[in-house]
Amino acid sequence: MQIAQVCGTVVSTAKEPSLTGMKFLLLQMVNLQGELLPEYEVAVDAVGAGFAEWVLVSRGSAARQPAAAREDRPIDATVVAIIDTVSVENRFLYSKRLAG
Amino acid sequence: MQIAQVCGTVVSTAKEPSLTGMKFLLLQMVNLQGELLPEYEVAVDAVGAGFAEWVLVSRGSAARQPAAAREDRPIDATVVAIIDTVSVENRFLYSKRLAG
Amino acid sequence: MQIAQVCGTVVSTAKEPSLTGMKFLLLQMVNLQGELLPEYEVAVDAVGAGFAEWVLVSRGSAARQPAAAREDRPIDATVVAIIDTVSVENRFLYSKRLAG
Amino acid sequence: MQIAQVCGTVVSTAKEPSLTGMKFLLLQMVNLQGELLPEYEVAVDAVGAGFAEWVLVSRGSAARQPAAAREDRPIDATVVAIIDTVSVENRFLYSKRLAG
Amino acid sequence: MQIAQVCGTVVSTAKEPSLTGMKFLLLQMVNLQGELLPEYEVAVDAVGAGFAEWVLVSRGSAARQPAAAREDRPIDATVVAIIDTVSVENRFLYSKRLAG
Repeated sequence: MQIAQVCGTVVSTAKEPSLTGMKFLLLQMVNLQGELLPEYEVAVDAVGAGFAEWVLVSRGSAARQPAAAREDRPIDATVVAIIDTVSVENRFLYSKRLAG
Repeated sequence: MQIAQVCGTVVSTAKEPSLTGMKFLLLQMVNLQGELLPEYEVAVDAVGAGFAEWVLVSRGSAARQPAAAREDRPIDATVVAIIDTVSVENRFLYSKRLAG
Repeated sequence: MQIAQVCGTVVSTAKEPSLTGMKFLLLQMVNLQGELLPEYEVAVDAVGAGFAEWVLVSRGSAARQPAAAREDRPIDATVVAIIDTVSVENRFLYSKRLAG
Repeated sequence: MQIAQVCGTVVSTAKEPSLTGMKFLLLQMVNLQGELLPEYEVAVDAVGAGFAEWVLVSRGSAARQPAAAREDRPIDATVVAIIDTVSVENRFLYSKRLAG
Repeated sequence: MQIAQVCGTVVSTAKEPSLTGMKFLLLQMVNLQGELLPEYEVAVDAVGAGFAEWVLVSRGSAARQPAAAREDRPIDATVVAIIDTVSVENRFLYSKRLAG
């Protein structure tokens, strides 16, 4: 999984019918220094992530495994966890409590 | 999923038989500044996307999930949504109504 | 799918038994300016592509979908179409008839 | 598979229910000179890997094959082996005994 | 598939149980000029490849297709062929007989 920050949303009316009612989050990927990268992912939200939160995104066929994203939907990225903390060696790269 | 703009088409007569009748769109990938990238994808169209529209493209096994692209076809990219708006933080990166 | 040009072949005697009789084409990837990239793919041929032709290559599990490449074979890239034309905006990036 | 070093952990309370009880390791990828790369992976641990150990990480649908990571979980990376030695040509790039 | 040269081995005692008895080869990727790239892959060997030989490596779910690598094993890369020759245009980029 990769670490990403929720930075926006994508809205679509004309979409593959099985995607109806799904919320598309725009995620910006985060590197090991905690910096935002140019890479992004548009992902379905399985956990109710909010703006600016750090999340874990699963890609590929993994994105269709959760109950919230049935296997017959054309999804290749899903937010599977809201991150509390990222620890690198003995320090916090990120702590949701402190980021608030 | 990635954000892309429809920039052309690819036509093929001699193709794997299960691809007969499918339309191949040429998509140019878009970054988080709304700029076109050198990367592209040739994708099957599941939603009737038109020239210059911004779309969401699903890749990998996700591309074979929609009813329009049966699982036994050798497809690794499908347009799954025509984008209305992309919002980054509190502004619109793209709005189909204004792009018209 | 990506656009590629057939630039050679790979021959192997000692291979996984299910690959017996399959032809491996060496493909060089093509960018949106019609230039050859350093990236390549060794792909199974499902359509009888010839030297210097432009083709569409499907990768990942898509490569094992056509009837010609049974699902139990360890293949991750297949040529699925010989390209007639690639149109970008209102011009031809490639036309097989003119390339001859 | 890629070679990586365990450099930290990611903790999440709000996650897809099937991920409950799974430990997320933060892995930094290693190149053929034995140097740490900027690329990382957040992976489920199937082998009890410890801090600073070198491991093999499997990605994609492979990550959901082991018994420890059931196929219906949205996981795209799993630590599948703790490395004893990496040999390149006739020398050790890494030896766990000596790294201790 | 990609072309790679066998450059070493990876040994692991503590590994996912289904990987017991499998040999992990360290492969260095080769470009279209026949040069070694910094990219590598640790792959299971399905064909008995030896040191310095050029091979084809299949990645993703394709790596779990051969009989030698059962579908329930967490493998994302397998050596599927030992290369005899690679021909680019009208010349040999590689010939196993001459490389000996």
